[in-house]
Amino acid sequence: MDYYPVSIKNLIRSLARLPGIGQKTAERLAMHILQQPADEAHQLARNIVDLKKKLRLCQRCFALSDDTLCRICNDPARENGLICVVEQPADMASIEKSGAFNGRYHILGGVLSPMDGIGPDDIKIAQLVDRVEKEAIREIIIATGTNVEGESTAAYIAGILEPLPVTVSRIASGVPMGGDLKYVDQVTLKRAMESRHGI
Amino acid sequence: MDYYPVSIKNLIRSLARLPGIGQKTAERLAMHILQQPADEAHQLARNIVDLKKKLRLCQRCFALSDDTLCRICNDPARENGLICVVEQPADMASIEKSGAFNGRYHILGGVLSPMDGIGPDDIKIAQLVDRVEKEAIREIIIATGTNVEGESTAAYIAGILEPLPVTVSRIASGVPMGGDLKYVDQVTLKRAMESRHGI
Repeated sequence: MDYYPVSIKNLIRSLARLPGIGQKTAERLAMHILQQPADEAHQLARNIVDLKKKLRLCQRCFALSDDTLCRICNDPARENGLICVVEQPADMASIEKSGAFNGRYHILGGVLSPMDGIGPDDIKIAQLVDRVEKEAIREIIIATGTNVEGESTAAYIAGILEPLPVTVSRIASGVPMGGDLKYVDQVTLKRAMESRHGI
Repeated sequence: MDYYPVSIKNLIRSLARLPGIGQKTAERLAMHILQQPADEAHQLARNIVDLKKKLRLCQRCFALSDDTLCRICNDPARENGLICVVEQPADMASIEKSGAFNGRYHILGGVLSPMDGIGPDDIKIAQLVDRVEKEAIREIIIATGTNVEGESTAAYIAGILEPLPVTVSRIASGVPMGGDLKYVDQVTLKRAMESRHGI
C-alpha cells in the first residue's frame, strides 16, 4: 500500500476492519469519501462519534436508546403485559419492521452458549423474571433465533418462567431453521408472530 | 427506521450513501461500529476527517499526496524522462501494485467526454505538455482505460504531443477492452506495460 499517501492508507486500513469490507472495497470507499463534499464526509465522521457517545441501553428493556428509557418503553400506545424476548437489538428492529407486534420488548443481549462460556448470568434473564413479576406481564413471546443456541435459550427461559403466572409462547416455525432473525423477510416474520404456540 | 434511536439512524443514513452499501449492509456496519471498542470507532472517524483535511494533489503530477510533491515525484530512485499518464489516482495505484513501471506519473483527473461536457481544458493535458517541455521527457506511456473515452483521450494526447520530440506509446492490449483500469489483475497489467506499442 506504499503507493497511497499516509492519510488515505490509514482510512483504508480502518474501513477494511469492518465486516464484509475487503481491501478492494475499502479502497473504493476511501476514494469515494475523498471525492465527497467535505461536509458529507464530516457528517459521517460525526455520526460515528455521536453513536459511541450518545447511544446507551434502555434501563428497562435493554434496547438501544438515546435516553434512559427507549422510545417503545416510553410509548403509551404500546400494549402493556406483553413482552417479546429477542437476542439482539437488530432482531427487535426486524420485528418492528414486520409491524406484527404491538407490545414491549426485552433484549437479552445474547444467547446461552456454553461453548463460548455464556451462561444465564451473562444475558438479561434475571431482569426478565424481575419484569414479569413487577410489570404484571400476561404473556412472554420468545423470539430468539431458531438455531441450537436460540432454541435452548428459549427452553431455558420457559423453564425459569414455569412457576410464574404468565403464558410463555414461542414464535411459530415459518422462520427457517438455522436462520438468523435479522435476515428473515418481513412477511415470514409476521406469520411466525401470528401463529405463535405454547412451549 | 423509527425502531432505531436517532444516533444510529443518522449513521445508517450516512453509510447507506456510500457506493455499494445498501440499507441492510449499512445497518450491519452500524451495529458492528456500535460493538467495536470506542477507540477503534474514533480512529475511523478521525481517519475520515484527516483524509479530507490533509490530502491534496501533488503540484507536479496531480497524484494524491500529503505534501506539496508526492512520494514518487520526490523519489530520486525513479527514472526521469519517462511519464505514465493515467486517468485517476486509483489507476496509478494499480500500476504501482504491478511493479512494472519505474518512471513518474501524470494523473489527468478524468477523461475527455463531450457527453458529460468534459473537454481538454477540464483535465490536466496542458500541464502534461508543459512537463514534456520542461522536464526533458523522453517517453510518454498513455495508460488511460480501454473504453471509448479512454481511447479517444489517448488519441487526443498523442495528437497534441506529435510536434514535440517525445515518443508516445500506449499500454498494450492485455487490458480487456471496455475495462476499468483499477479492476484489472496485476499480471495482465504487467504484461500490458511490457508490450506497449507506438500510437
